[in-house]
Amino acid sequence: MRTIFWNEGVAIIDQTKLPEKLEVVVCKKVEELVEAIRRLAIRGAPALEAAGGYGVALATVEREFKSLEELKKHVEKAAEMIISARPTAVNLSVGVKRVLKVALKGESIEEVRSLAIKEAEKIADEDVRRNRKIGEFGAELLEDGDTVLTYCNTGRFATVDWGTALGVVRSAIKKGKNIKVIACETRPLNQGSRLTCYELIEDKIDVTLITDAMVGIVMKRGLVNKVLVGADRIVKDGVFNKIGTYTLSIVAKEHKIPFYVAAPTTTFDWDKTSEEVVIEERPKEELIYCGTKLLAPPKVKVFNPAFDCTPLSYVNAIITELGIIRPPYESNVPKLLGLKSF
Amino acid sequence: MRTIFWNEGVAIIDQTKLPEKLEVVVCKKVEELVEAIRRLAIRGAPALEAAGGYGVALATVEREFKSLEELKKHVEKAAEMIISARPTAVNLSVGVKRVLKVALKGESIEEVRSLAIKEAEKIADEDVRRNRKIGEFGAELLEDGDTVLTYCNTGRFATVDWGTALGVVRSAIKKGKNIKVIACETRPLNQGSRLTCYELIEDKIDVTLITDAMVGIVMKRGLVNKVLVGADRIVKDGVFNKIGTYTLSIVAKEHKIPFYVAAPTTTFDWDKTSEEVVIEERPKEELIYCGTKLLAPPKVKVFNPAFDCTPLSYVNAIITELGIIRPPYESNVPKLLGLKSF
Repeated sequence: MRTIFWNEGVAIIDQTKLPEKLEVVVCKKVEELVEAIRRLAIRGAPALEAAGGYGVALATVEREFKSLEELKKHVEKAAEMIISARPTAVNLSVGVKRVLKVALKGESIEEVRSLAIKEAEKIADEDVRRNRKIGEFGAELLEDGDTVLTYCNTGRFATVDWGTALGVVRSAIKKGKNIKVIACETRPLNQGSRLTCYELIEDKIDVTLITDAMVGIVMKRGLVNKVLVGADRIVKDGVFNKIGTYTLSIVAKEHKIPFYVAAPTTTFDWDKTSEEVVIEERPKEELIYCGTKLLAPPKVKVFNPAFDCTPLSYVNAIITELGIIRPPYESNVPKLLGLKSF
Repeated sequence: MRTIFWNEGVAIIDQTKLPEKLEVVVCKKVEELVEAIRRLAIRGAPALEAAGGYGVALATVEREFKSLEELKKHVEKAAEMIISARPTAVNLSVGVKRVLKVALKGESIEEVRSLAIKEAEKIADEDVRRNRKIGEFGAELLEDGDTVLTYCNTGRFATVDWGTALGVVRSAIKKGKNIKVIACETRPLNQGSRLTCYELIEDKIDVTLITDAMVGIVMKRGLVNKVLVGADRIVKDGVFNKIGTYTLSIVAKEHKIPFYVAAPTTTFDWDKTSEEVVIEERPKEELIYCGTKLLAPPKVKVFNPAFDCTPLSYVNAIITELGIIRPPYESNVPKLLGLKSF
């Protein structure tokens, strides 16, 4: 089952319920989908791109319309509402805008609806194909018997299906390699324990959970052969990813363990440097509470950045759907992406 | 208020209640104290040494005795029971044995009682004096305006009062230096968020809470000047301390930030090497649940070592109650401790 799909509405796996239970929610109204995005029932850059697209499709069918004009007005308004659900999530608006553009070309209510749904399905299908390609290329980097250490969730719950870094693990296993995974819990929101462990166990992939600060001891003991993480944005000098990735990269370098990033080419923002990227800070409550349990004095000061930046010089290879990029990135990234060299 | 003190029984701050509330429990029976030690209402090597001593004192007064012989028999039995509360905690048995030895010299019921209470008080007083000395020596390493990053809880809740690594911070502030603290939450049991933040806020010391994997970003941004941690055991080639300390030490080294260990000389086990120390593994439930909240699929495999080992070559200085030890430790540790060189 995909993380998000069309089923007379937008069906999503509600990730806030995991690992307690796997629950599919079908959003029949755009408002319900917006609410689901806001409360992180669906998250992960590639999954949000699909959510944006499906959201526009939902707007075309969520009620009856008296005229084509009324429908188009309604859809444009709904598109804005969806984007505003997570205003900093670029992928969400990419998906919304792509489907909106296509749908508005429709010349009847039925045509608008059909165009919107088809384009949204196309985004979702493309994401799965893209992840399969990442997996195929990346699988070459893994050897039979490897144990891969991973961070956060880069699997099917972060995408429409298959995953990026976890997709590489899946593809290598599909090719007959025996691959084990060590998953960091990924504080403060525990996407590693909640989502990565869940989906790997579901797929019968051997996974062991550790706290984020145990990366030192597991590498020292030789329990890890490769590190494989995802990315939120890749700029000329660094990889922005879930907070804690930079610490992990330092420890991998210390133990001479290859550190790989798996991400679609849409993740590159190659005309920027890390200095230009502002790292968003999240609510302090994420460190003060765990469920209803109080973990720290409520008035304590908290530093809670959502991302950090790993220097590209610490990254041994970047796995994309177009192929593997090795250093020197300065010349090899533009070459693969067909970009001009900056 | 001390973490543990004599008050017609053994009074302790119940640390399982923190940070919700500061609650003092007075154990009037040895059984109650044993139970408190078992459920970690009191923890931390130096604090447990005092708990062991006070426990023997409690055994002498918890009920009436018909004869001196009956009292002594009862106390010896109680001593065994206390030690068994946490059989691997060396400090607990050190405290028990020291008070037992002195108390048994008493020639009347009253004398046994008085000797036991006095010796227990002596252990507690010694711990506070020892921590003050560690603080005084260590304060010289901190400069006005420094921000110290610390791990786990090494403050008054881990000792009778003042603390080891946090004692150094307190002493530096007492000398008029402006010192801020960054506290790592310290997964999986969050002693950093629950205890360190609590006691520093109580003392109006500026503290900011981070997740353990944020050490990279805070060091990269220049927000930390020194790292200060405690120790559970120091052997010839390494420092055993709370799991995650080794990862922290690598990140500090990468950013050229001094890494200091503060611990009483009783922590040295200098005739051993790290290879000889078995690291205890704790229950998997610590990573699967947080309070009542399920963080991971209950059947997931978990690796949960309680400690890791930081190579002594990563440690810039060890602060003890006898002075600061700098490399080369091979010669300087035996010199300070008055040990033969091995």
